[in-house]
Amino acid sequence: MIESRDPESLVADLTRQGVESAYALIKSKIKRTPVLTNESISTIATGSDRIQTTLFFKCENFQKGGAFKIRGATYALEMLKAEDLENGVITHSSGNYGQALAIAAKAKGIKAYIVMPSNSARPKIEATKSYGANVHFSGPTAPEREYVTETIRKTTNARLIPPYDHPHIILGQGTVLLELMCQTQVEYGQQLDAVIVPVGGGGLLAGCALAAQGTGVRVFAAEPALADDCFRGVEAGRRVPTVTTTTVADGLRTPVGIINFPIIQKYVEKVFTVSEEEILAAMRLVWERMKIVVEPSGAVPLAVALSDRWKVEGVNGKVGIVLSGGNVDLDKVGELLKKS
Amino acid sequence: MIESRDPESLVADLTRQGVESAYALIKSKIKRTPVLTNESISTIATGSDRIQTTLFFKCENFQKGGAFKIRGATYALEMLKAEDLENGVITHSSGNYGQALAIAAKAKGIKAYIVMPSNSARPKIEATKSYGANVHFSGPTAPEREYVTETIRKTTNARLIPPYDHPHIILGQGTVLLELMCQTQVEYGQQLDAVIVPVGGGGLLAGCALAAQGTGVRVFAAEPALADDCFRGVEAGRRVPTVTTTTVADGLRTPVGIINFPIIQKYVEKVFTVSEEEILAAMRLVWERMKIVVEPSGAVPLAVALSDRWKVEGVNGKVGIVLSGGNVDLDKVGELLKKS
Repeated sequence: MIESRDPESLVADLTRQGVESAYALIKSKIKRTPVLTNESISTIATGSDRIQTTLFFKCENFQKGGAFKIRGATYALEMLKAEDLENGVITHSSGNYGQALAIAAKAKGIKAYIVMPSNSARPKIEATKSYGANVHFSGPTAPEREYVTETIRKTTNARLIPPYDHPHIILGQGTVLLELMCQTQVEYGQQLDAVIVPVGGGGLLAGCALAAQGTGVRVFAAEPALADDCFRGVEAGRRVPTVTTTTVADGLRTPVGIINFPIIQKYVEKVFTVSEEEILAAMRLVWERMKIVVEPSGAVPLAVALSDRWKVEGVNGKVGIVLSGGNVDLDKVGELLKKS
Repeated sequence: MIESRDPESLVADLTRQGVESAYALIKSKIKRTPVLTNESISTIATGSDRIQTTLFFKCENFQKGGAFKIRGATYALEMLKAEDLENGVITHSSGNYGQALAIAAKAKGIKAYIVMPSNSARPKIEATKSYGANVHFSGPTAPEREYVTETIRKTTNARLIPPYDHPHIILGQGTVLLELMCQTQVEYGQQLDAVIVPVGGGGLLAGCALAAQGTGVRVFAAEPALADDCFRGVEAGRRVPTVTTTTVADGLRTPVGIINFPIIQKYVEKVFTVSEEEILAAMRLVWERMKIVVEPSGAVPLAVALSDRWKVEGVNGKVGIVLSGGNVDLDKVGELLKKS
């Protein structure tokens, strides 16, 4: 655990108010990312036989570090006492979370130790280093990563900050929906009817589900069919603790966390799964029509909104789409775009 | 000529006030595109030995049709009488201008005939058709394109709307800088010191140069070294009427227009040229750090701001960068990104 307080009392903060408190503390430290609309994509989502759908895209691909992860990382560090941080912080991550923690640690003037699989893409390693982090390498499997992390943690006495399975991380990520709702109202004069959120470890999804409480916004989850532990867990009424997958949505290859799962069970209306082809087609559409770079994981909610399964759900009107990240390996972009 | 008024009187409107009048007429019909900043790119532009430079990116890649061209096209149509438009409008274009005129014509409920070289990229042809235009094909050279255009114009009696060499087009494109200056002030509380604008036919550059008059904003041009007719023309004091080039910046393969050239001579402080490598490196940086899709032509101004030649110019402070378009053939993106 990363905090000195009793875990039970932390879970008790898991409310919309908890998300609002998190936002008050982090908003000056993160970017308020834009909310964009796109007429041609909304037209495609509407189809020929439905009431007008308007999609509101929350562009967390423009966030510091290229993804929403900085929100939770910043809040987790803000909630720790100075003495808990004096030896720095540590985590293992192959992707966006490592960069986010490195940025948040740099902003607080403390050390960050990031354990990355040695087969991580070079640009991700470079980016993490560029934020001043001490990067260490491990083998690619979870046990190998955890072993190296634990070894360094013992040597340095750095504080472990988990990527999603923690109340503060959940509350921090939930600020995405707070902002999206506010911007849709202030900038477009509209109220959201629903939001579609990607799910990997479930930090963002659980946080958004909390942020939606009492607002009338319906919360749906979007998951790659090749990494459908959340979908299966919700169906079975029991968390699926592992997932082995090669989905192109590499940010969503994680099983849902222990704290995250019951929140999702309680507050998320439905989990939709999408195929690899649907993910890549949605990604390409965003690049082509919106002229913005979104990573495959970040395009999963749009893939849901464009699918026939979503259409039978009957949600029309104003739908929020979280574009959760934009970190793609540009050397491999040609390949990704060609697949679709 | 596309207008009924005396050409001399039209040229007399070529002032900042003329740009303001154009803006009043078109602003409800175009997108007010966002102005973004990016800390890491500004840091690179600053370098180690200079006063802090902050770049303000005007994202015309998010404009309707994916480029700034809709501004001039819309204004040109607004300034014509209904009887001048009843047979529709016509132009030849291999790129963004054809799409822009198609969109502007559709908004006015009139026909658009767009002549495209038969070797145009398929997505561009599809996009132009998707806006309801009648697309015709010609050979790739200027005489072939002009011949087909003239033949169709005679048959249809459609009104020819040139892409850049016209006062209304110039004034419409100049609204890019009006908006950029306003947004930099209102959204960031800053005043621009300078702006770097790409130059092909010179509609955007001449328009921005007019919009800058009396404001203290210094105007610089950015041109591919492989298509440096503007640079050479300004040096020689005489317009260079043709340019043959294969620059990757395909939107800038045009010689500067007759009306455009004297405005550029008079009001643009300096024309900078950049290599193909510099253009592609700047483009990649925008994709990587800003997570937005810009076409090679649209990255030319940033390539200038990052070059050593720009640094010796001594412009520090607040510099506007016009990202003029985002229409790339996604099937060829891998190749473009790899080159750099």
